[in-house]
Amino acid sequence: MVVASQSLEQVCINAIRFLAIDAVQKAKSGHPGLPMGAAPMAFVLWDRFMRFNPKNPQWFNRDRFVLSAGHGCMLQYAMLHLTGYDSVTLDDIKQFRQWESKTPGHPENFMTAGVEVTTGPLGQGICNAVGLAAAEAHLAAKFNKPDAKIVDHYTYVILGDGCNMEGVSGEACSLAGHWGLGKLIALYDDNHISIDGDTAISFTEDVSKRFEAYGWHTIHVENGNTDLDAIAAAIEEAKSVTDKPTMIKVTTTIGYGSPNKAGTAGVHGAALGDDEVALTRKELGWEHEPFDVPADALAHFRKAVERGASYQAEWEETFAQYKTKYATEAAEFERFISGALPEGWDAALPMPGPEDSSMATRKHSQTALNAIAPSLPELIGGSADLTHSNLTELKCSGDFQKTDYNNRNLRFGVREHGMAAICNGISLHNSGLIPYCATFLVFADYMRGAMRLSALAEAGVIYVLTHDSIALGEDGPTHQPVETIASLRVIPNLLVIRPADGKESSGAYQVAVTNAKRADGPNRSSVLAFTRQGLPNLPGTSAEGVAKGAYIVVDCGCNEPDLILIGTGSEVSLCVKAAEEIAATGKKVRVVSMPCWELFAEQSADYQESVLPKAATKRLAVEAGTPFGWERYVGSEGAVIGTPGFGASAPGGKIMEEYGFTVENVVAKAKEVMG
Amino acid sequence: MVVASQSLEQVCINAIRFLAIDAVQKAKSGHPGLPMGAAPMAFVLWDRFMRFNPKNPQWFNRDRFVLSAGHGCMLQYAMLHLTGYDSVTLDDIKQFRQWESKTPGHPENFMTAGVEVTTGPLGQGICNAVGLAAAEAHLAAKFNKPDAKIVDHYTYVILGDGCNMEGVSGEACSLAGHWGLGKLIALYDDNHISIDGDTAISFTEDVSKRFEAYGWHTIHVENGNTDLDAIAAAIEEAKSVTDKPTMIKVTTTIGYGSPNKAGTAGVHGAALGDDEVALTRKELGWEHEPFDVPADALAHFRKAVERGASYQAEWEETFAQYKTKYATEAAEFERFISGALPEGWDAALPMPGPEDSSMATRKHSQTALNAIAPSLPELIGGSADLTHSNLTELKCSGDFQKTDYNNRNLRFGVREHGMAAICNGISLHNSGLIPYCATFLVFADYMRGAMRLSALAEAGVIYVLTHDSIALGEDGPTHQPVETIASLRVIPNLLVIRPADGKESSGAYQVAVTNAKRADGPNRSSVLAFTRQGLPNLPGTSAEGVAKGAYIVVDCGCNEPDLILIGTGSEVSLCVKAAEEIAATGKKVRVVSMPCWELFAEQSADYQESVLPKAATKRLAVEAGTPFGWERYVGSEGAVIGTPGFGASAPGGKIMEEYGFTVENVVAKAKEVMG
Repeated sequence: MVVASQSLEQVCINAIRFLAIDAVQKAKSGHPGLPMGAAPMAFVLWDRFMRFNPKNPQWFNRDRFVLSAGHGCMLQYAMLHLTGYDSVTLDDIKQFRQWESKTPGHPENFMTAGVEVTTGPLGQGICNAVGLAAAEAHLAAKFNKPDAKIVDHYTYVILGDGCNMEGVSGEACSLAGHWGLGKLIALYDDNHISIDGDTAISFTEDVSKRFEAYGWHTIHVENGNTDLDAIAAAIEEAKSVTDKPTMIKVTTTIGYGSPNKAGTAGVHGAALGDDEVALTRKELGWEHEPFDVPADALAHFRKAVERGASYQAEWEETFAQYKTKYATEAAEFERFISGALPEGWDAALPMPGPEDSSMATRKHSQTALNAIAPSLPELIGGSADLTHSNLTELKCSGDFQKTDYNNRNLRFGVREHGMAAICNGISLHNSGLIPYCATFLVFADYMRGAMRLSALAEAGVIYVLTHDSIALGEDGPTHQPVETIASLRVIPNLLVIRPADGKESSGAYQVAVTNAKRADGPNRSSVLAFTRQGLPNLPGTSAEGVAKGAYIVVDCGCNEPDLILIGTGSEVSLCVKAAEEIAATGKKVRVVSMPCWELFAEQSADYQESVLPKAATKRLAVEAGTPFGWERYVGSEGAVIGTPGFGASAPGGKIMEEYGFTVENVVAKAKEVMG
Repeated sequence: MVVASQSLEQVCINAIRFLAIDAVQKAKSGHPGLPMGAAPMAFVLWDRFMRFNPKNPQWFNRDRFVLSAGHGCMLQYAMLHLTGYDSVTLDDIKQFRQWESKTPGHPENFMTAGVEVTTGPLGQGICNAVGLAAAEAHLAAKFNKPDAKIVDHYTYVILGDGCNMEGVSGEACSLAGHWGLGKLIALYDDNHISIDGDTAISFTEDVSKRFEAYGWHTIHVENGNTDLDAIAAAIEEAKSVTDKPTMIKVTTTIGYGSPNKAGTAGVHGAALGDDEVALTRKELGWEHEPFDVPADALAHFRKAVERGASYQAEWEETFAQYKTKYATEAAEFERFISGALPEGWDAALPMPGPEDSSMATRKHSQTALNAIAPSLPELIGGSADLTHSNLTELKCSGDFQKTDYNNRNLRFGVREHGMAAICNGISLHNSGLIPYCATFLVFADYMRGAMRLSALAEAGVIYVLTHDSIALGEDGPTHQPVETIASLRVIPNLLVIRPADGKESSGAYQVAVTNAKRADGPNRSSVLAFTRQGLPNLPGTSAEGVAKGAYIVVDCGCNEPDLILIGTGSEVSLCVKAAEEIAATGKKVRVVSMPCWELFAEQSADYQESVLPKAATKRLAVEAGTPFGWERYVGSEGAVIGTPGFGASAPGGKIMEEYGFTVENVVAKAKEVMG
């Protein structure tokens, strides 16, 4: 029974709150405070503004919603359930945070339809939202016609104090302001409470002023607990500002309705407890049983189903007209969102051979990127202010700027972490775009938080990471990756590829692109590690070899080699030269190029045995990085030539020599291994 | 010969510029643009304001200087050389960026006396500076007396656009504003150029407004190229504002003096070239040979030697008086800066045994921290808003806030990367403070950029990282480290310790503290990984064992075991239980606890052989994380029980069971290994 004095809207808002309260209570785990405080803004947003289709969560032109404060995920699950998504039933809510449930402890796009991105690690969601809005802006500029807007949606995000404290959010929001992403609307749940207590102990900056400095429009809703019209007016105002993103600071009370815990950290990350739940029911006039949603409230929420069908129908009609008038563009649009790659997208990839001059693999990468870009219009990306070192500019396009959203070169500035998180958003827009981003390999450390999410959330991002070893030279140990390749290999579901020359660089792009965008399965992200220094194009390498992860580059005419040299990237040519010397002494030497451990591990046991026969135990791996992990492939009788610690500042050739990456040392070590 | 029209100050400034120009030219590598543009501000700062003693670079009360834009390091080397430091001779400058030189490609505190911190990765230096200023504020509050200020210095930093774009700088600067660090003065070299070109392409925010939002005082020097008095007036003003840090935006021209390259990205990261150097000499009226510093300019700079001696003498006198009046405090201060730990600092560390109740190692960590804190006053730190999850509060102290700098609990807010970089600064203040910082283990990813620098720069930071496996449960895969331990083990010079119970937790603190502060060698940082879930206290564990990295916890009465089970952290007790079952079948089983790979690798070959005899090839490692790297210890005939991919959201016990961390599965796998 609804208390007489409550409006239907109030009942709806309390329904959201109590689904969260009850789910957390049942799970004895979770974060009820945020859903309780942010329920009004979520209700207003979803009820009065957001355009989505619950029965077709992937309908292209939906408004995107991101709960950047992912710990409050019961808010999102409640909204999905109440508005009629099939992905979250009441039973799913009762299984909150349980094994294999659709309602995990943080929102995961790969578990729950209707969740756009994976949040929880604070700050990521708002950056993803910048990426979603950038994707919308790009596609709108590319496809829309004066008489037919087929790409036209907002990106809404709810974020909290934690997201605003994280530096990554500052990076992406500065860029969003620069880009003038007018259809990005952020609601900042300003509740003054983080896990440690009142934000007064560590967070006293003027957040709105900071966002104004970024070039955002800002609005303050002083009473986010009950003033629904003020929230709605703010969102209206935000929509009317088309040349700037908007930050609406909505001041709320965390755990609103809990007589003893509201406004305290006690309601942030723990169940209220039976007594306090009872008191909260009383306080909010909520007489319903746990998980019981009043019929009139549910009916009101479920109007979203009808609205959604009509939004989609309207869009389908627009698209049908578009298709009639602009058949070519429509076909391309349909291909984009289908997940299919264009025919022959990789036909122009060069396959240089030994006759071609030596070249750094970062230059091969440049050639490859520019070879595929014209035929792969969904490729979009750039560098964190190292464009001319990473060599990642697409010459067939201009800069993506507020005046030119149709361009494909993204200028990220020195913002690695924001860059990666934005690329996750672009990929998870699920409109077929393939984002790539670039910096020096060592600075993967700066964006690792987002790279992990690329892998976990099944985004398809291509990381172009150049200057991939101590051989980069003079910049010294702060810039020289030694442990970085290994540190990326340990991330599950991420392909780490270190090509040896031109053909392998082209092969690396083939793998990266086909994994970034798959019509028939989850996407996968790749790291491509390229050299600063020149390398010869080898006779034995191949693009196909890259797809297998490891393969034989030089063989000895038998499957019983006396020695197997295993190299990656720049050390493959070194292994080839050393092999020649060792073979000259009558030994049977095989050289294996191993550009990608993860792909090799996916090959059949037979193939693996054909490359690295178990009986061939005399193995030497050579990689200009930490030996860590190489025991897997060299075994107990093998050895590794790697880096012993950090690098040093000197010309690259000198460092390689001092660290033992010479034919002489490889030959000497190989002799030790062979005994 | 000095051109007649140039003032001595102008000659000095050009001397700085040309040392940079000539060094980069000779090395054919480096970044001349920043030194050319920022030379005036550096000159004014070092000449008119900074108190330091070139002949005793470690003199305690020196002003600290940080070149956050570390690529411009020739600026710093020039200043060190010109003002009379012995660490940078003219020959060293001629060896810029060469093998083993004192003038590496970015400033490295471990290579060059006078360099306080290691910079280069953008954004780190300004955060280190926040740490240096926080250290000063804390020590001043702790030691100073109304009649004797023995701790009283400024922290100056020069940073560029790149540093300001990086999110990590925003985190630390927000905190610096909150803390009101009035003696932190930052000079922002506002030259509108980053590597990709004009900052207009990606960085159009209002930086000063942002810093005002953080609570900083801001000043703009419009002509940083020639208006030395304006620079000086700004620094004076900054010093007069004692309750806020100050950001002085100094607008300059990158590559000032180069007729064709000034104000362009062309002068950012490459030598000018012979022709342009000649033109620049002409433009700036510089008729001296390369590396030739005019005698009158050098004489002027070298007055710093005399000034420095008198600054130090003055301070020595103050300290002598302090020592007379405040003998106890003086003795403590002297111990602090000597690098010595107090006698018996670890006497109160608990050594719980099997009779004590099961407990999460994060709680053992809490007990240990609070056991040592009263007797280890140099211990200072806190958590990134997870104080009551990480359990890192020092109960013997209050919060470090602008009103209470003498307190030792640092409230970092949700700012992991800034936290770690600030802790690097606190450690590299070199005043004996031992900083610790805390978050969930998985969020090491957020601060990895700074953690790598802890290791490289030989800082002594203790990372307290709790919730160390999938067993944390409901929060799910975004919060569950699976690859994190491995990813940290690959960083050189970093101790990664995962204790199994109470005694090992105490042992971990013994290792971490003694490595964080060493009187007789470089400091070293540690990662301590603690569980969320309860674990039994085992009979065979020991604190001494931790210091050896790995040791025998349960043995079989011989050195020829049929099986060795190797566990870390929470999996040691699992191994012990499984060993009991396997031993009951008549097999000789040894259990090895291996809390720290790095320390085990440092033990003698004999010791290693005594723990893991080469002949004992049947080995099974059990760790709730990726198997990556374990082949090193289990060998070709061994196996690993680890996690196959990412984690999942469910109660921790359920996940551990589903992932095979059960006695049953360990026993089954062990049988497979034994064959």
